[in-house]
Amino acid sequence: MNDIGATRWAIAVGYIPPNSHGDAPQLTSHETVCILNAGDGEAHISITIYYADRDPSGPYRIAVPARRTRHIRFNNLKDPEPIPADTDFASVIESDVPVVVQHTRLDSRQAETALLSTIAYAAAD
Amino acid sequence: MNDIGATRWAIAVGYIPPNSHGDAPQLTSHETVCILNAGDGEAHISITIYYADRDPSGPYRIAVPARRTRHIRFNNLKDPEPIPADTDFASVIESDVPVVVQHTRLDSRQAETALLSTIAYAAAD
Amino acid sequence: MNDIGATRWAIAVGYIPPNSHGDAPQLTSHETVCILNAGDGEAHISITIYYADRDPSGPYRIAVPARRTRHIRFNNLKDPEPIPADTDFASVIESDVPVVVQHTRLDSRQAETALLSTIAYAAAD
Amino acid sequence: MNDIGATRWAIAVGYIPPNSHGDAPQLTSHETVCILNAGDGEAHISITIYYADRDPSGPYRIAVPARRTRHIRFNNLKDPEPIPADTDFASVIESDVPVVVQHTRLDSRQAETALLSTIAYAAAD
Repeated sequence: MNDIGATRWAIAVGYIPPNSHGDAPQLTSHETVCILNAGDGEAHISITIYYADRDPSGPYRIAVPARRTRHIRFNNLKDPEPIPADTDFASVIESDVPVVVQHTRLDSRQAETALLSTIAYAAAD
Repeated sequence: MNDIGATRWAIAVGYIPPNSHGDAPQLTSHETVCILNAGDGEAHISITIYYADRDPSGPYRIAVPARRTRHIRFNNLKDPEPIPADTDFASVIESDVPVVVQHTRLDSRQAETALLSTIAYAAAD
Repeated sequence: MNDIGATRWAIAVGYIPPNSHGDAPQLTSHETVCILNAGDGEAHISITIYYADRDPSGPYRIAVPARRTRHIRFNNLKDPEPIPADTDFASVIESDVPVVVQHTRLDSRQAETALLSTIAYAAAD
Repeated sequence: MNDIGATRWAIAVGYIPPNSHGDAPQLTSHETVCILNAGDGEAHISITIYYADRDPSGPYRIAVPARRTRHIRFNNLKDPEPIPADTDFASVIESDVPVVVQHTRLDSRQAETALLSTIAYAAAD
Protein backbone atom coordinates (compact mmCIF):
# COMPACT_ATOMS: atom_id res chain seq x y z
CA MET A 1 0.00 0.00 0.00
CA ASN A 2 1.99 2.92 -1.28
CA ASP A 3 -0.96 5.06 -2.22
CA ILE A 4 -1.72 8.29 -0.38
CA GLY A 5 -4.46 10.87 -0.78
CA ALA A 6 -8.14 11.00 -1.60
CA THR A 7 -10.36 10.41 -4.62
CA ARG A 8 -12.27 13.72 -4.74
CA TRP A 9 -10.67 17.15 -4.59
CA ALA A 10 -11.69 20.75 -5.23
CA ILE A 11 -9.90 24.00 -6.05
CA ALA A 12 -12.12 27.07 -5.66
CA VAL A 13 -9.72 29.49 -7.36
CA GLY A 14 -8.91 29.43 -11.04
CA TYR A 15 -7.69 32.19 -13.31
CA ILE A 16 -5.43 32.05 -16.34
CA PRO A 17 -3.65 35.41 -16.62
CA PRO A 18 -4.14 36.71 -20.15
CA ASN A 19 -0.55 37.79 -20.76
CA SER A 20 3.03 37.13 -19.67
CA HIS A 21 6.58 38.37 -19.45
CA GLY A 22 9.68 36.21 -19.61
CA ASP A 23 10.85 33.07 -21.37
CA ALA A 24 8.21 30.64 -22.63
CA PRO A 25 7.10 28.16 -21.51
CA GLN A 26 8.62 28.30 -17.99
CA LEU A 27 7.69 31.92 -17.28
CA THR A 28 4.45 31.99 -19.27
CA SER A 29 1.61 32.81 -16.87
CA HIS A 30 -0.08 29.55 -15.95
CA GLU A 31 -2.56 27.94 -13.59
CA THR A 32 -1.57 24.41 -12.70
CA VAL A 33 -3.12 21.36 -11.06
CA CYS A 34 -0.40 19.04 -9.79
CA ILE A 35 -1.38 15.42 -9.20
CA LEU A 36 0.69 12.78 -7.39
CA ASN A 37 -0.20 9.15 -7.85
CA ALA A 38 2.08 7.33 -5.42
CA GLY A 39 0.13 4.08 -5.72
CA ASP A 40 0.72 0.94 -7.75
CA GLY A 41 -2.08 1.36 -10.30
CA GLU A 42 -2.77 3.97 -12.97
CA ALA A 43 -5.08 6.82 -11.91
CA HIS A 44 -7.90 7.85 -14.24
CA ILE A 45 -8.71 11.48 -13.52
CA SER A 46 -11.78 13.52 -14.48
CA ILE A 47 -11.65 17.30 -14.08
CA THR A 48 -14.83 19.40 -14.18
CA ILE A 49 -14.52 23.18 -14.60
CA TYR A 50 -17.08 25.47 -12.96
CA TYR A 51 -17.70 29.07 -14.06
CA ALA A 52 -19.49 32.09 -12.65
CA ASP A 53 -22.15 32.45 -15.29
CA ARG A 54 -22.41 29.34 -17.46
CA ASP A 55 -22.77 25.59 -17.05
CA PRO A 56 -19.70 23.53 -16.14
CA SER A 57 -17.44 22.09 -18.83
CA GLY A 58 -15.81 18.68 -18.90
CA PRO A 59 -15.00 16.12 -17.95
CA TYR A 60 -11.41 16.62 -18.99
CA ARG A 61 -9.84 13.14 -18.79
CA ILE A 62 -6.21 12.58 -17.78
CA ALA A 63 -4.28 9.46 -16.83
CA VAL A 64 -1.47 9.49 -14.27
CA PRO A 65 0.60 6.30 -14.34
CA ALA A 66 1.50 4.42 -11.17
CA ARG A 67 4.26 6.11 -9.12
CA ARG A 68 4.26 9.24 -11.26
CA THR A 69 3.31 12.91 -10.91
CA ARG A 70 1.75 15.11 -13.55
CA HIS A 71 1.69 18.90 -13.41
CA ILE A 72 -1.10 19.94 -15.74
CA ARG A 73 -1.55 23.53 -16.90
CA PHE A 74 -5.22 24.43 -17.19
CA ASN A 75 -4.06 26.49 -20.20
CA ASN A 76 -3.38 23.21 -21.99
CA LEU A 77 -6.75 21.51 -21.42
CA LYS A 78 -8.41 21.51 -24.85
CA ASP A 79 -10.89 18.60 -24.91
CA PRO A 80 -13.88 19.03 -24.78
CA GLU A 81 -13.09 22.79 -24.97
CA PRO A 82 -10.35 25.24 -23.91
CA ILE A 83 -10.72 27.27 -20.70
CA PRO A 84 -10.84 30.97 -21.55
CA ALA A 85 -8.14 33.26 -20.16
CA ASP A 86 -9.01 36.21 -17.91
CA THR A 87 -12.07 34.32 -16.58
CA ASP A 88 -12.82 33.12 -13.04
CA PHE A 89 -13.26 29.38 -12.68
CA ALA A 90 -13.03 26.55 -10.14
CA SER A 91 -12.45 22.83 -10.51
CA VAL A 92 -13.35 19.44 -9.08
CA ILE A 93 -10.83 16.64 -9.59
CA GLU A 94 -12.01 13.02 -9.29
CA SER A 95 -9.86 9.89 -9.46
CA ASP A 96 -10.54 6.16 -9.31
CA VAL A 97 -7.59 5.67 -6.92
CA PRO A 98 -6.21 7.93 -4.16
CA VAL A 99 -4.09 10.83 -5.38
CA VAL A 100 -2.81 14.11 -3.91
CA VAL A 101 -3.77 17.39 -5.61
CA GLN A 102 -2.05 20.76 -5.26
CA HIS A 103 -2.83 24.05 -6.98
CA THR A 104 -0.17 26.50 -8.22
CA ARG A 105 -0.22 29.71 -10.25
CA LEU A 106 2.65 31.59 -11.83
CA ASP A 107 1.61 35.08 -12.83
CA SER A 108 4.01 37.02 -15.03
CA ARG A 109 1.61 39.67 -16.29
CA GLN A 110 3.91 42.29 -14.88
CA ALA A 111 7.67 42.15 -15.38
CA GLU A 112 8.30 40.08 -12.25
CA THR A 113 6.94 36.69 -11.30
CA ALA A 114 4.31 36.08 -8.61
CA LEU A 115 3.49 32.64 -7.24
CA LEU A 116 0.78 31.01 -5.15
CA SER A 117 0.16 27.42 -4.10
CA THR A 118 -2.10 25.42 -1.82
CA ILE A 119 -2.97 21.80 -1.24
CA ALA A 120 -6.49 21.41 -2.67
CA TYR A 121 -9.55 20.55 -0.58
CA ALA A 122 -9.91 16.79 -0.11
CA ALA A 123 -13.40 15.41 0.40
CA ALA A 124 -13.73 12.75 3.06
CA ASP A 125 -14.33 9.41 1.37
CA MET B 1 -24.70 13.97 -5.12
CA ASN B 2 -22.35 16.36 -6.83
CA ASP B 3 -21.76 18.58 -3.85
CA ILE B 4 -18.37 18.80 -2.16
CA GLY B 5 -17.11 20.78 0.79
CA ALA B 6 -18.34 21.94 4.17
CA THR B 7 -20.86 24.43 5.52
CA ARG B 8 -18.62 26.46 7.85
CA TRP B 9 -15.27 27.94 6.93
CA ALA B 10 -12.82 30.47 8.36
CA ILE B 11 -10.04 32.67 6.98
CA ALA B 12 -7.85 34.17 9.71
CA VAL B 13 -6.03 36.61 7.43
CA GLY B 14 -7.63 39.61 5.82
CA TYR B 15 -6.10 42.83 4.60
CA ILE B 16 -7.10 45.07 1.73
CA PRO B 17 -3.97 46.87 0.51
CA PRO B 18 -4.71 50.59 0.40
CA ASN B 19 -3.19 51.27 -3.00
CA SER B 20 -2.30 49.64 -6.30
CA HIS B 21 -0.26 49.69 -9.45
CA GLY B 22 -1.36 48.35 -12.83
CA ASP B 23 -4.53 48.10 -14.87
CA ALA B 24 -7.85 48.19 -13.01
CA PRO B 25 -9.66 46.07 -12.10
CA GLN B 26 -7.48 43.00 -12.75
CA LEU B 27 -4.33 44.39 -11.11
CA THR B 28 -6.04 46.46 -8.44
CA SER B 29 -4.93 45.16 -5.02
CA HIS B 30 -7.64 42.86 -3.73
CA GLU B 31 -8.48 40.30 -1.09
CA THR B 32 -10.76 37.60 -2.44
CA VAL B 33 -12.92 34.79 -1.08
CA CYS B 34 -13.57 32.22 -3.79
CA ILE B 35 -16.57 29.94 -3.31
CA LEU B 36 -17.37 26.82 -5.34
CA ASN B 37 -20.89 25.40 -5.19
CA ALA B 38 -20.65 22.14 -7.12
CA GLY B 39 -24.02 20.94 -5.84
CA ASP B 40 -27.46 20.95 -7.37
CA GLY B 41 -29.05 23.64 -5.18
CA GLU B 42 -28.35 27.34 -4.70
CA ALA B 43 -26.02 28.17 -1.78
CA HIS B 44 -27.01 30.98 0.59
CA ILE B 45 -23.82 32.35 2.11
CA SER B 46 -23.36 34.56 5.18
CA ILE B 47 -19.97 36.17 5.77
CA THR B 48 -19.07 37.68 9.15
CA ILE B 49 -16.02 39.97 9.38
CA TYR B 50 -13.97 40.06 12.59
CA TYR B 51 -11.66 42.92 13.54
CA ALA B 52 -8.89 43.50 16.07
CA ASP B 53 -10.55 46.19 18.11
CA ARG B 54 -14.26 46.45 17.34
CA ASP B 55 -17.30 44.19 17.15
CA PRO B 56 -17.80 42.02 14.07
CA SER B 57 -19.71 43.30 11.07
CA GLY B 58 -22.18 41.42 8.95
CA PRO B 59 -23.70 39.19 7.91
CA TYR B 60 -22.85 39.94 4.32
CA ARG B 61 -25.26 37.80 2.27
CA ILE B 62 -24.31 36.25 -1.06
CA ALA B 63 -25.98 33.62 -3.22
CA VAL B 64 -24.00 31.17 -5.34
CA PRO B 65 -26.18 29.32 -7.87
CA ALA B 66 -25.99 25.57 -8.32
CA ARG B 67 -22.90 24.40 -10.22
CA ARG B 68 -21.30 27.84 -10.20
CA THR B 69 -18.31 29.57 -8.62
CA ARG B 70 -18.13 33.12 -7.35
CA HIS B 71 -14.90 34.96 -6.64
CA ILE B 72 -15.85 37.80 -4.30
CA ARG B 73 -13.53 40.69 -3.53
CA PHE B 74 -13.84 41.81 0.08
CA ASN B 75 -13.26 45.29 -1.38
CA ASN B 76 -16.72 45.03 -2.97
CA LEU B 77 -18.72 44.03 0.11
CA LYS B 78 -20.80 47.12 0.94
CA ASP B 79 -23.89 45.93 2.84
CA PRO B 80 -24.24 46.36 5.81
CA GLU B 81 -20.99 48.40 5.64
CA PRO B 82 -17.72 48.48 3.63
CA ILE B 83 -14.58 46.85 5.04
CA PRO B 84 -11.91 49.51 5.58
CA ALA B 85 -8.62 49.24 3.68
CA ASP B 86 -5.30 48.95 5.51
CA THR B 87 -7.01 47.18 8.43
CA ASP B 88 -6.50 43.63 9.74
CA PHE B 89 -9.58 41.43 9.63
CA ALA B 90 -10.67 37.79 9.50
CA SER B 91 -13.81 36.10 8.24
CA VAL B 92 -16.21 33.23 8.86
CA ILE B 93 -18.15 31.93 5.86
CA GLU B 94 -21.34 29.93 6.49
CA SER B 95 -23.49 28.20 3.87
CA ASP B 96 -26.73 26.22 3.94
CA VAL B 97 -25.23 23.61 1.58
CA PRO B 98 -21.66 22.30 1.22
CA VAL B 99 -19.26 24.61 -0.61
CA VAL B 100 -15.49 24.93 -0.97
CA VAL B 101 -13.80 28.18 0.10
CA GLN B 102 -10.36 29.45 -0.91
CA HIS B 103 -8.63 32.72 -0.02
CA THR B 104 -6.50 34.75 -2.44
CA ARG B 105 -4.79 38.15 -2.31
CA LEU B 106 -3.26 40.15 -5.12
CA ASP B 107 -1.06 42.91 -3.74
CA SER B 108 0.11 45.53 -6.23
CA ARG B 109 1.10 48.23 -3.77
CA GLN B 110 4.57 48.16 -5.22
CA ALA B 111 5.16 48.11 -8.99
CA GLU B 112 5.09 44.32 -9.24
CA THR B 113 2.36 41.88 -8.27
CA ALA B 114 2.49 39.57 -5.25
CA LEU B 115 0.05 36.70 -4.72
CA LEU B 116 -1.01 34.38 -1.93
CA SER B 117 -3.66 31.70 -1.67
CA THR B 118 -4.82 28.95 0.68
CA ILE B 119 -7.79 26.69 1.04
CA ALA B 120 -9.71 28.07 4.04
CA TYR B 121 -10.20 26.19 7.31
CA ALA B 122 -13.21 23.87 7.13
CA ALA B 123 -15.02 23.12 10.36
CA ALA B 124 -16.04 19.50 10.85
CA ASP B 125 -19.80 19.25 10.50
CA MET C 1 -21.77 28.24 19.80
CA ASN C 2 -20.00 30.69 17.54
CA ASP C 3 -16.55 29.25 17.99
CA ILE C 4 -14.69 27.57 15.15
CA GLY C 5 -11.29 25.97 14.92
CA ALA C 6 -9.01 23.84 17.04
CA THR C 7 -6.92 24.27 20.18
CA ARG C 8 -3.52 23.10 18.90
CA TRP C 9 -1.86 24.29 15.71
CA ALA C 10 1.58 24.13 14.11
CA ILE C 11 3.47 26.13 11.49
CA ALA C 12 6.60 24.36 10.22
CA VAL C 13 8.01 27.38 8.38
CA GLY C 14 9.35 30.47 10.05
CA TYR C 15 11.85 33.01 8.83
CA ILE C 16 12.09 36.73 9.53
CA PRO C 17 13.81 38.36 6.55
CA PRO C 18 16.68 40.48 7.85
CA ASN C 19 16.02 43.55 5.73
CA SER C 20 13.27 45.38 3.88
CA HIS C 21 12.33 47.88 1.22
CA GLY C 22 9.28 50.14 1.30
CA ASP C 23 7.29 52.09 3.83
CA ALA C 24 7.39 50.92 7.46
CA PRO C 25 5.59 49.25 9.07
CA GLN C 26 3.28 47.96 6.31
CA LEU C 27 6.04 46.95 3.89
CA THR C 28 8.63 45.94 6.47
CA SER C 29 9.46 42.27 5.95
CA HIS C 30 7.47 40.25 8.46
CA GLU C 31 6.38 36.78 9.43
CA THR C 32 2.89 36.77 10.88
CA VAL C 33 0.64 34.39 12.80
CA CYS C 34 -3.00 35.41 12.38
CA ILE C 35 -5.45 34.15 14.99
CA LEU C 36 -9.24 34.32 14.78
CA ASN C 37 -11.25 33.84 17.97
CA ALA C 38 -14.87 33.76 16.78
CA GLY C 39 -16.10 32.41 20.09
CA ASP C 40 -17.73 34.10 23.06
CA GLY C 41 -14.83 33.81 25.51
CA GLU C 42 -11.31 35.25 25.56
CA ALA C 43 -8.62 32.95 24.13
CA HIS C 44 -5.40 32.53 26.06
CA ILE C 45 -2.68 31.59 23.57
CA SER C 46 0.76 30.08 24.18
CA ILE C 47 3.27 30.06 21.32
CA THR C 48 6.40 27.89 21.46
CA ILE C 49 9.21 28.56 18.96
CA TYR C 50 11.36 25.66 17.71
CA TYR C 51 14.80 26.10 16.18
CA ALA C 52 17.22 23.95 14.19
CA ASP C 53 20.04 23.82 16.68
CA ARG C 54 18.94 25.01 20.11
CA ASP C 55 16.18 24.32 22.62
CA PRO C 56 12.74 25.84 22.06
CA SER C 57 11.88 29.26 23.44
CA GLY C 58 8.64 30.36 25.05
CA PRO C 59 5.89 30.22 25.88
CA TYR C 60 4.99 33.57 24.38
CA ARG C 61 1.60 34.45 25.88
CA ILE C 62 -1.06 36.36 23.98
CA ALA C 63 -4.74 36.98 24.65
CA VAL C 64 -7.30 37.30 21.88
CA PRO C 65 -10.61 38.73 23.10
CA ALA C 66 -13.94 37.14 22.19
CA ARG C 67 -15.04 37.83 18.60
CA ARG C 68 -11.73 39.41 17.64
CA THR C 69 -8.76 38.64 15.40
CA ARG C 70 -5.12 39.38 16.11
CA HIS C 71 -2.40 39.40 13.46
CA ILE C 72 0.84 39.00 15.38
CA ARG C 73 4.24 39.60 13.80
CA PHE C 74 6.83 37.15 15.10
CA ASN C 75 9.20 40.14 14.79
CA ASN C 76 7.33 41.72 17.70
CA LEU C 77 7.45 38.81 20.17
CA LYS C 78 9.91 39.93 22.85
CA ASP C 79 9.03 38.04 26.04
CA PRO C 80 10.74 35.79 27.12
CA GLU C 81 13.20 36.65 24.30
CA PRO C 82 13.14 38.04 20.73
CA ILE C 83 13.26 35.67 17.74
CA PRO C 84 16.42 36.30 15.74
CA ALA C 85 16.13 37.42 12.11
CA ASP C 86 17.62 35.36 9.28
CA THR C 87 17.10 32.14 11.30
CA ASP C 88 14.89 29.13 10.51
CA PHE C 89 12.20 28.42 13.08
CA ALA C 90 8.82 26.73 13.49
CA SER C 91 5.98 27.26 15.95
CA VAL C 92 3.26 25.51 17.91
CA ILE C 93 0.23 27.58 18.90
CA GLU C 94 -1.98 26.37 21.77
CA SER C 95 -5.24 27.90 22.95
CA ASP C 96 -7.68 27.17 25.75
CA VAL C 97 -10.63 27.66 23.37
CA PRO C 98 -10.98 26.88 19.64
CA VAL C 99 -9.31 29.38 17.31
CA VAL C 100 -8.25 29.43 13.65
CA VAL C 101 -4.57 30.04 12.81
CA GLN C 102 -3.12 31.19 9.49
CA HIS C 103 0.49 31.94 8.57
CA THR C 104 1.59 34.81 6.31
CA ARG C 105 4.93 36.29 5.27
CA LEU C 106 5.66 39.54 3.50
CA ASP C 107 9.18 39.60 2.16
CA SER C 108 10.48 42.95 0.91
CA ARG C 109 14.19 42.17 0.95
CA GLN C 110 14.30 42.98 -2.72
CA ALA C 111 12.59 46.06 -4.13
CA GLU C 112 9.29 44.29 -4.75
CA THR C 113 7.02 42.52 -2.32
CA ALA C 114 6.57 38.74 -2.15
CA LEU C 115 3.81 37.06 -0.15
CA LEU C 116 2.93 33.60 1.09
CA SER C 117 0.12 32.27 3.26
CA THR C 118 -1.33 28.98 4.44
CA ILE C 119 -3.83 27.82 7.00
CA ALA C 120 -1.72 26.21 9.75
CA TYR C 121 -1.86 22.50 10.64
CA ALA C 122 -4.64 21.78 13.11
CA ALA C 123 -4.18 18.84 15.45
CA ALA C 124 -7.24 16.67 15.95
CA ASP C 125 -8.55 17.25 19.43
CA MET D 1 2.93 14.28 24.89
CA ASN D 2 4.36 17.25 23.08
CA ASP D 3 4.25 15.74 19.63
CA ILE D 4 1.96 17.08 16.93
CA GLY D 5 1.36 16.06 13.36
CA ALA D 6 1.19 12.91 11.29
CA THR D 7 3.60 10.26 10.04
CA ARG D 8 2.86 10.36 6.30
CA TRP D 9 2.75 13.50 4.19
CA ALA D 10 2.71 14.41 0.51
CA ILE D 11 3.61 17.47 -1.56
CA ALA D 12 2.33 17.26 -5.14
CA VAL D 13 4.32 20.25 -6.42
CA GLY D 14 8.07 20.30 -6.83
CA TYR D 15 10.26 22.38 -9.08
CA ILE D 16 13.77 23.71 -8.54
CA PRO D 17 14.13 26.90 -10.60
CA PRO D 18 17.25 26.59 -12.72
CA ASN D 19 18.64 30.06 -12.03
CA SER D 20 18.58 32.89 -9.51
CA HIS D 21 19.14 36.54 -8.80
CA GLY D 22 20.29 37.98 -5.49
CA ASP D 23 22.64 37.06 -2.67
CA ALA D 24 23.45 33.38 -2.15
CA PRO D 25 22.36 31.33 -0.35
CA GLN D 26 19.35 33.24 1.05
CA LEU D 27 18.04 34.48 -2.29
CA THR D 28 19.11 31.49 -4.37
CA SER D 29 16.00 29.92 -5.90
CA HIS D 30 15.02 26.96 -3.76
CA GLU D 31 12.30 24.44 -3.06
CA THR D 32 12.09 23.57 0.61
CA VAL D 33 10.44 20.96 2.81
CA CYS D 34 10.17 22.24 6.38
CA ILE D 35 9.74 19.64 9.10
CA LEU D 36 8.83 20.30 12.73
CA ASN D 37 9.43 17.57 15.29
CA ALA D 38 7.88 18.93 18.48
CA GLY D 39 8.04 15.55 20.21
CA ASP D 40 10.47 14.10 22.70
CA GLY D 41 12.16 11.55 20.42
CA GLU D 42 14.27 11.89 17.27
CA ALA D 43 12.34 11.61 14.00
CA HIS D 44 13.74 9.41 11.24
CA ILE D 45 12.46 10.73 7.93
CA SER D 46 12.36 9.07 4.51
CA ILE D 47 11.60 11.19 1.46
CA THR D 48 10.65 9.62 -1.87
CA ILE D 49 10.72 11.77 -5.01
CA TYR D 50 8.24 11.09 -7.83
CA TYR D 51 8.76 12.25 -11.41
CA ALA D 52 6.63 12.55 -14.53
CA ASP D 53 8.43 10.06 -16.71
CA ARG D 54 10.79 7.89 -14.67
CA ASP D 55 10.72 5.71 -11.58
CA PRO D 56 10.84 7.35 -8.15
CA SER D 57 14.16 8.07 -6.45
CA GLY D 58 15.00 7.64 -2.81
CA PRO D 59 14.60 7.14 -0.01
CA TYR D 60 16.46 10.25 1.07
CA ARG D 61 17.04 9.79 4.81
CA ILE D 62 17.05 12.70 7.26
CA ALA D 63 16.97 12.85 11.04
CA VAL D 64 15.23 15.64 12.93
CA PRO D 65 16.18 15.72 16.62
CA ALA D 66 13.57 16.01 19.36
CA ARG D 67 12.13 19.53 19.73
CA ARG D 68 13.83 20.80 16.58
CA THR D 69 12.87 21.98 13.10
CA ARG D 70 14.77 21.37 9.90
CA HIS D 71 14.20 23.32 6.70
CA ILE D 72 15.61 21.14 3.93
CA ARG D 73 16.22 22.43 0.43
CA PHE D 74 15.45 19.78 -2.18
CA ASN D 75 18.42 21.34 -4.03
CA ASN D 76 20.67 19.90 -1.32
CA LEU D 77 19.44 16.28 -1.38
CA LYS D 78 22.32 14.34 -2.95
CA ASP D 79 22.05 10.74 -1.70
CA PRO D 80 21.13 8.48 -3.48
CA GLU D 81 21.10 11.05 -6.33
CA PRO D 82 20.52 14.80 -6.84
CA ILE D 83 17.12 16.08 -8.01
CA PRO D 84 17.49 17.75 -11.40
CA ALA D 85 16.61 21.44 -11.75
CA ASP D 86 13.90 22.61 -14.13
CA THR D 87 12.05 19.28 -13.72
CA ASP D 88 8.59 18.62 -12.26
CA PHE D 89 8.54 16.36 -9.23
CA ALA D 90 6.47 15.50 -6.15
CA SER D 91 7.36 14.00 -2.80
CA VAL D 92 6.13 11.72 -0.03
CA ILE D 93 7.57 12.30 3.44
CA GLU D 94 7.38 9.47 5.99
CA SER D 95 8.41 9.61 9.65
CA ASP D 96 8.51 7.12 12.49
CA VAL D 97 7.02 9.73 14.87
CA PRO D 98 4.48 12.51 14.25
CA VAL D 99 5.87 15.60 12.53
CA VAL D 100 4.44 18.62 10.71
CA VAL D 101 5.48 19.26 7.09
CA GLN D 102 5.22 22.50 5.14
CA HIS D 103 6.32 23.28 1.60
CA THR D 104 7.92 26.58 0.53
CA ARG D 105 9.50 27.86 -2.67
CA LEU D 106 11.56 30.98 -3.22
CA ASP D 107 11.87 31.76 -6.92
CA SER D 108 14.39 34.43 -7.88
CA ARG D 109 14.71 33.58 -11.57
CA GLN D 110 13.64 37.10 -12.36
CA ALA D 111 15.11 40.09 -10.54
CA GLU D 112 12.50 40.06 -7.78
CA THR D 113 11.59 37.31 -5.34
CA ALA D 114 8.41 35.25 -5.51
CA LEU D 115 7.25 32.99 -2.68
CA LEU D 116 4.72 30.22 -2.14
CA SER D 117 3.95 28.00 0.83
CA THR D 118 1.38 25.44 1.94
CA ILE D 119 1.00 22.93 4.72
CA ALA D 120 1.52 19.55 3.03
CA TYR D 121 -1.19 16.86 2.75
CA ALA D 122 -1.32 14.71 5.87
CA ALA D 123 -2.54 11.14 5.48
CA ALA D 124 -4.90 9.92 8.16
CA ASP D 125 -3.06 7.40 10.31
